[in-house]
Amino acid sequence: MHFVCRITLLLAVGLALTAFAAAARGDEGMWLFNAPPTQYLKDKYDFDASKKWLTHVQKSSVRFNSGGSGSFVSAGGLVLTNHHVGLDALQKLSNLRKKDYVTDGFYARSRADEFKCEGMELNVLMEIRVVTDRVKAAVKADLSSEKAALARRAVINQIEKEAAEETKLKPQVVTLFQGGEYHLYLFKKYTDVRLVFAPEQQIAFYGGDPDNFEYPRFDLDICLFRVYENDKPAEVKDYLKWASKPVKEGDLIFVSGHPGRTSRLNTVAELEYLRDIGYPFLMQRLNRLEVLLSTFSERSEENRRQAKEYYFSVQNSRKARLGGLQALLDPALMDAKRKEEARLKAGAEKDDKLKDTLSAWGRVAGAQKVRAANIRRYTLLEGGSGFNSDLFSYARTLVRAAAESAKPNGERLREYSESSLESLQEQLFAEEEIYPEFEIAKLSDAFMFLSAELGHDSPLVKKVLAGKTPGDRARALVEGSKLAKANVRKELYKGGADAIAASKDPLIELARLVDPEARAVRKVIETEVDEVSRQAYAQIAQVKFALDGTKTYPDATFTLRLSFGPVKGYEEAGKKVPYTTTFAGMYERARENKNRPPFDLPERWVKAKDKLDLKAPLNFVSTADIIGGNSGSPVINRDAEFVGIIFDGNIQSLMLDFAYSDVQARAVSVDAQGILEALRKVYDAGALADELTGKK
Amino acid sequence: MHFVCRITLLLAVGLALTAFAAAARGDEGMWLFNAPPTQYLKDKYDFDASKKWLTHVQKSSVRFNSGGSGSFVSAGGLVLTNHHVGLDALQKLSNLRKKDYVTDGFYARSRADEFKCEGMELNVLMEIRVVTDRVKAAVKADLSSEKAALARRAVINQIEKEAAEETKLKPQVVTLFQGGEYHLYLFKKYTDVRLVFAPEQQIAFYGGDPDNFEYPRFDLDICLFRVYENDKPAEVKDYLKWASKPVKEGDLIFVSGHPGRTSRLNTVAELEYLRDIGYPFLMQRLNRLEVLLSTFSERSEENRRQAKEYYFSVQNSRKARLGGLQALLDPALMDAKRKEEARLKAGAEKDDKLKDTLSAWGRVAGAQKVRAANIRRYTLLEGGSGFNSDLFSYARTLVRAAAESAKPNGERLREYSESSLESLQEQLFAEEEIYPEFEIAKLSDAFMFLSAELGHDSPLVKKVLAGKTPGDRARALVEGSKLAKANVRKELYKGGADAIAASKDPLIELARLVDPEARAVRKVIETEVDEVSRQAYAQIAQVKFALDGTKTYPDATFTLRLSFGPVKGYEEAGKKVPYTTTFAGMYERARENKNRPPFDLPERWVKAKDKLDLKAPLNFVSTADIIGGNSGSPVINRDAEFVGIIFDGNIQSLMLDFAYSDVQARAVSVDAQGILEALRKVYDAGALADELTGKK
Repeated sequence: MHFVCRITLLLAVGLALTAFAAAARGDEGMWLFNAPPTQYLKDKYDFDASKKWLTHVQKSSVRFNSGGSGSFVSAGGLVLTNHHVGLDALQKLSNLRKKDYVTDGFYARSRADEFKCEGMELNVLMEIRVVTDRVKAAVKADLSSEKAALARRAVINQIEKEAAEETKLKPQVVTLFQGGEYHLYLFKKYTDVRLVFAPEQQIAFYGGDPDNFEYPRFDLDICLFRVYENDKPAEVKDYLKWASKPVKEGDLIFVSGHPGRTSRLNTVAELEYLRDIGYPFLMQRLNRLEVLLSTFSERSEENRRQAKEYYFSVQNSRKARLGGLQALLDPALMDAKRKEEARLKAGAEKDDKLKDTLSAWGRVAGAQKVRAANIRRYTLLEGGSGFNSDLFSYARTLVRAAAESAKPNGERLREYSESSLESLQEQLFAEEEIYPEFEIAKLSDAFMFLSAELGHDSPLVKKVLAGKTPGDRARALVEGSKLAKANVRKELYKGGADAIAASKDPLIELARLVDPEARAVRKVIETEVDEVSRQAYAQIAQVKFALDGTKTYPDATFTLRLSFGPVKGYEEAGKKVPYTTTFAGMYERARENKNRPPFDLPERWVKAKDKLDLKAPLNFVSTADIIGGNSGSPVINRDAEFVGIIFDGNIQSLMLDFAYSDVQARAVSVDAQGILEALRKVYDAGALADELTGKK
Repeated sequence: MHFVCRITLLLAVGLALTAFAAAARGDEGMWLFNAPPTQYLKDKYDFDASKKWLTHVQKSSVRFNSGGSGSFVSAGGLVLTNHHVGLDALQKLSNLRKKDYVTDGFYARSRADEFKCEGMELNVLMEIRVVTDRVKAAVKADLSSEKAALARRAVINQIEKEAAEETKLKPQVVTLFQGGEYHLYLFKKYTDVRLVFAPEQQIAFYGGDPDNFEYPRFDLDICLFRVYENDKPAEVKDYLKWASKPVKEGDLIFVSGHPGRTSRLNTVAELEYLRDIGYPFLMQRLNRLEVLLSTFSERSEENRRQAKEYYFSVQNSRKARLGGLQALLDPALMDAKRKEEARLKAGAEKDDKLKDTLSAWGRVAGAQKVRAANIRRYTLLEGGSGFNSDLFSYARTLVRAAAESAKPNGERLREYSESSLESLQEQLFAEEEIYPEFEIAKLSDAFMFLSAELGHDSPLVKKVLAGKTPGDRARALVEGSKLAKANVRKELYKGGADAIAASKDPLIELARLVDPEARAVRKVIETEVDEVSRQAYAQIAQVKFALDGTKTYPDATFTLRLSFGPVKGYEEAGKKVPYTTTFAGMYERARENKNRPPFDLPERWVKAKDKLDLKAPLNFVSTADIIGGNSGSPVINRDAEFVGIIFDGNIQSLMLDFAYSDVQARAVSVDAQGILEALRKVYDAGALADELTGKK
């Protein structure tokens, strides 16, 4: 349950960054489904984004709560996503079934072979309701930040509770425009999700870390699941039909997915915070983790298997975040941001109704100072970096669930509100393989980090280490705990506050021990940073709406968005980079790298070469505006037919965290036709291809 | 010229650390050749450490100024060291000759094939003179720290200058007991050093990072050079004869080498500084570098080759330093250190002559606070972490050499004193391959580090980046500079201050730009930390001498020391670990790891298996007290015959930085007999084996 975002598409490199300032905005935007750029699409592309079209696409789109996107691609409940989005589930299923589906791939030739993925939850957005007024009304202007944060949490928890009771759907109040608007999202939830197909990771992630965030690419980064209801394949009304023709250069395509987080509306002060404190500290943690996981992996093949997914996610984040930091270090980007900020301030100065918003920028800047002073402690104690282990995450969840359940819904921490508990229980009670030596390695490293950051002689670190070395303490905790067993966790959960208070499990004891200080620093961040920022950004949004109208889109929030643009190659170092790659190119890349890892091909692919149409398209690029979280998003044509699946952005796209550009930044997809070719000729999965193309 | 110590034997893990407090001191000690433990050796081992024996061993020992040890092993000037000590030279020679001796190995079958290693310098210790009184007399008690530091530097530079003129040897005044004593070391210098033999790195560093600092081991970590004088092989009087019989368990052996640095006499305050600030910051830098070098290497085979040596040195330091940090985090070690400190203080309290030393501990503690406040800035600006590139190192050396040469000898920075200039010039003028893309990658990363640590908006960082992104700035500097050419460096150097002031080389301009601030922070460290500590430690040493007598040894200083102890296996997790390994064990290790890197064997070894005596000893362990810098040290028997060569310590030995133990800590050597077996049967190098055994 470590929170490192595993999504391939996170951030931003500054290679072509000087280009962005001059570039027209073009097809920018991660648009809300309840506020799409209808007029622009009509004007520029003569495309009619009808209500029907939008609703169909919305309900065909799927959110993976583990951090990615996907879509329904058959009436029988088939869900297509990226291999790297499904990786966590593949790994867990492999552990439980003593197989290695990650390395070997998987194909269920019958329904009986479709195995359930424990703890997996998919969400489909059914409805959006705007609740801005109700949230804002509940937070009176004269409240202290602390009271305002509590009031906000209370009204949000209340709105979600009422919605859950009314609709039986899963509710989520989403904060948009950094606090400018609040929308209630209502999701249909699928928790019986079964694995249908995965290729070998070697071909899904062909080229490994060196090719990650690069283009041209040759990856079959796909994975197929099927959702079940009442132990039968779900019958799905809205799903994407497979396109019969491949895309070609210039075609308008749409991407419907869940971009995780962008920082385009951030004030300069917040960007400077990210540049000077936030990103460097994150890089420090990622470097530390990457070295830990690399050395742990090298010790044996079994270690490598255990750490594989986490290692991949850390490498992926490191490459992405490094790109983001490089963008922030480009003076051209900051200058453009400063100009935009000056424009907004000047607009506010001129309008009497906006005059009292002028302090907003200063308040955001003030909040950054508090954040800078607390971020290390927050990340270690509340973010879990100081206790990095799955077992500790279980322990904390149990300790907090007991404490929070005893409170009225409105006063609970967000993730323990009434409407969140069901999903939380499903995750907590799911059977998961725990590797004691891996847990010890992570926890021991985390304790060293905790000691370095908070001081070895600090009272908290002394309590945590209990007179032992980090290694000895980690071993004692992991070997002494029973939390690896799902039934132990379930019993403790059901036992509530009494069971937790009485527990002698050393990790429960540790979680209890650090909880007051973790909560304290969380409160500082929530009240003095988040709440202050939210109020200030709401005012800044007000200025922006007044100057530019409301026809804009908010920063990404890991909720459903619509992006679009043409399929299009680009120029790099004076050379044309074509919009598509082929199977032939993949075999050539293996040859020129002498088949050395990570450029070696799976046995199955070596053998299948003669059968394949080598000219068939494998990957292609478009200018659609995407970011991390969009992994697995369907790429569709005007007729809402499936033409590809997003799996990466090129290195130039890593700047999109902070500003859009269509000069070189590209979204990278697996081509729909390439998928069929591989299924039929490499994997002997004709039945599956038939289901996708509606032939059966 | 990046300063990451490449020596395999640096530091200390806390695995068996609780054992040390109870353990008898046993055969502890890295003894000075002018103050050997004669009585102890007589009493315990009935060994007579005669003046003749000691002088012979001393003059047979060789220091590699790149950071390791070695020894003369033939009358014809053959010098034996570790492959990883010779690696830098191997890499440079490969570059110049467009070969890959690191991967393929090297054997000069005739004198004409022995190629000169540019910039390499070996030192042999000829004489030691005690100069404590003269140094202490020159530093009057009433001087300010700043004046005291200057006075100390002046007298040391003067002593060295006089000694150089008198003896024509290379002088070095060595600070011992952290300031308790000063000895003048006089070295014979060899600068014409030629490569004779190196095995493939694959067998020299068999098992790679996972097996580094582990035992049992199977490494042929050797490399042979020959020193020349007047273009002829030097005739060497003192060299080690090859032992005719292998060592066996229980044999007394000696190690004569150059341990780099230990911290055993440090006060608790200084150890706490290392634990809380020094080591964590170092780990942060090493993690960052390891990820940088790993990703750079993965991009292509050529990148991998360019970065190989640096990458290895960083991984090695990381593993060693992590061990050191783990030792410092063991409360048992700190408790023992606290007790020892209390004992010294109590002793000082009781003795009126020592009463005024009591403030010494507080002064060391005060110096640590200054160090903590300045270490990041110091490391970045003066230590070079903020400008990590070979080209910048050249630029700084040129800028400083011009400025320092104009000053009187006594006022110069240590490394530019008159007696140091010759060696400095040899390094500066040596032809070296510079890889622009590698330089850019390192420099770009260093600028990002600089920005994160000092603040992107700090005046210094703004000046350094000159309005560019770190990547663009690094590229402009590297591509705009001519310093990669040795003749350009030579001309600038000869041109002195005028040429430097007039230079438009962008790296010279950068070095000029940062020099005032780099010097300023160096001055703070030298006066307020080093000088204050030196004076305080001199007093603490006084207390220690008064309580325990002077029959002790100082912390390691990368000068020649004598260690000893029996060849001896140990117990681990209840199992006996034998004192020796064999060729058979090596083949078995490859088999059990399915020949996967880093456990694959070179082709030559696969083929030679049938010819080899598989029972021949390959590596063995002893209890000798060693640390990083001892790499390449000869291991000799009572008759001063060569029986092996140190190349590593086991994981338990990593605690030796802070305290000696012989429970599990072991020095790991290549066996002399194993070397002969490999030379004759794997490398067809019978002539070389004959020279080593005196058969020709």
